[in-house]
Amino acid sequence: MSTPTAALLLIGSELLSGKVKEANLHPLAEVLFSHGVKLCRGVAVADDHEAIVAEVNALSKSHTWLFTSGGVGPTHDDITMEAIAAARAQSVIAHPVLKRMLEQRYGARCTEAHLRMAQTPEGCILEGSHGTLEANTEPGEWPAVRLENIWIFPGVPEAFRMKLEILASFLKRSGARTGFVSLSVLCAVEETALVPAIDAIVAAFPKLSIGSYPKWFDPSYKTKITFDGTELEEAQKASELFIKRVGPELAWLAKNDD
Amino acid sequence: MSTPTAALLLIGSELLSGKVKEANLHPLAEVLFSHGVKLCRGVAVADDHEAIVAEVNALSKSHTWLFTSGGVGPTHDDITMEAIAAARAQSVIAHPVLKRMLEQRYGARCTEAHLRMAQTPEGCILEGSHGTLEANTEPGEWPAVRLENIWIFPGVPEAFRMKLEILASFLKRSGARTGFVSLSVLCAVEETALVPAIDAIVAAFPKLSIGSYPKWFDPSYKTKITFDGTELEEAQKASELFIKRVGPELAWLAKNDD
Repeated sequence: MSTPTAALLLIGSELLSGKVKEANLHPLAEVLFSHGVKLCRGVAVADDHEAIVAEVNALSKSHTWLFTSGGVGPTHDDITMEAIAAARAQSVIAHPVLKRMLEQRYGARCTEAHLRMAQTPEGCILEGSHGTLEANTEPGEWPAVRLENIWIFPGVPEAFRMKLEILASFLKRSGARTGFVSLSVLCAVEETALVPAIDAIVAAFPKLSIGSYPKWFDPSYKTKITFDGTELEEAQKASELFIKRVGPELAWLAKNDD
Repeated sequence: MSTPTAALLLIGSELLSGKVKEANLHPLAEVLFSHGVKLCRGVAVADDHEAIVAEVNALSKSHTWLFTSGGVGPTHDDITMEAIAAARAQSVIAHPVLKRMLEQRYGARCTEAHLRMAQTPEGCILEGSHGTLEANTEPGEWPAVRLENIWIFPGVPEAFRMKLEILASFLKRSGARTGFVSLSVLCAVEETALVPAIDAIVAAFPKLSIGSYPKWFDPSYKTKITFDGTELEEAQKASELFIKRVGPELAWLAKNDD
């Protein structure tokens, strides 16, 4: 079974004008990594129909999963649903389950703007924490919207994180794969001086992905070396050998919160 | 004079595995916005030669400026210089000014790994805070490396920010353009209820880019409306009309630090 892959499309002019700090790449990356899905690419574009359609087409075809973030609110600059529908040659329709949820929530106060939140590409599936919703389900939570291999997530970070919980339960239920493992070694040595030791370990452990990250102005360490792979034992062996080579007084295994 | 455009290519597997939180898009976006350069796209890729070459080719051809972040250190996973050189059919050579700087800094301790930091694509220009460095300059600071329209920045956020100061002084010196302006209005009203007022302002001010951003769980406001453009007067007129329409008890101009 080959490793499933993923891409994230961040939609929102506010990210590119510096008005809003991007905050969704990192939590998605963590969830995918811990469930064994390889995030290969993140792309940020403005609220621009053609740019979104082109990226949705390219990224959804070249990856197992595409996640989109943003552009699903009720205002003029929320054009994600229309663009994804266009990319897949679908119409946008009011999803009956979402429409019923909105009518129940807002009752007599329910407006056109509220109902716009039910507009989704035809053929969308709704995913809840306990599985795919059926047409007659009464969902308590607002579900995640998925069109084939495209998960359409909101951009507001608090809402995005709620959808990540649904995604994590989906990956847990559907995947036989375990997540990737990662160990880190912290070094009181500058990165340049570590190059020979790193090169030796890279050559000896071709199945691991080994990274090196200098830290400036941090009194606790100067360089972090990471050992990522699918086998914990392999990562442990490599990190131990590396520590032995650099010297245990200068390199030590990081704790989870380092 | 048409608006100059830009793209950012973030290079680093650590951003996509969730090990490191991306931190360079936002400060670059702020600098470009305030100098009137339109950032159109941000792309994050792993330390993968082919992916970097393809993105450098595509993004540098379709934008006035391309900025890259990351992959310029001394270790095996630092492949940005080679990939950018390959994209532009150049060799990688030791830049004489950078080599001299490294030899002066490290003296007798200067190793192969140190000297790797001087390896840059042939034809690179060095930009300092006061202008392009000449071959015989004695630069105090480590300069920014530029190949034609590609600025090659380091990924460590502290180092990236130092390069932004050089970029800001470059844009100030070279550009006749002033920056974009942005005003924000905060509303104690949910986004859905604002849709008619927003639509009216969007229609009345076609030259402005108007954004709407709901805020969850914030006691101070519920929705932020932003008015971006090239003319302060236009943004002021639109925000005043919007506040009048929503009601000054429910909508107010944001201060700079809101």
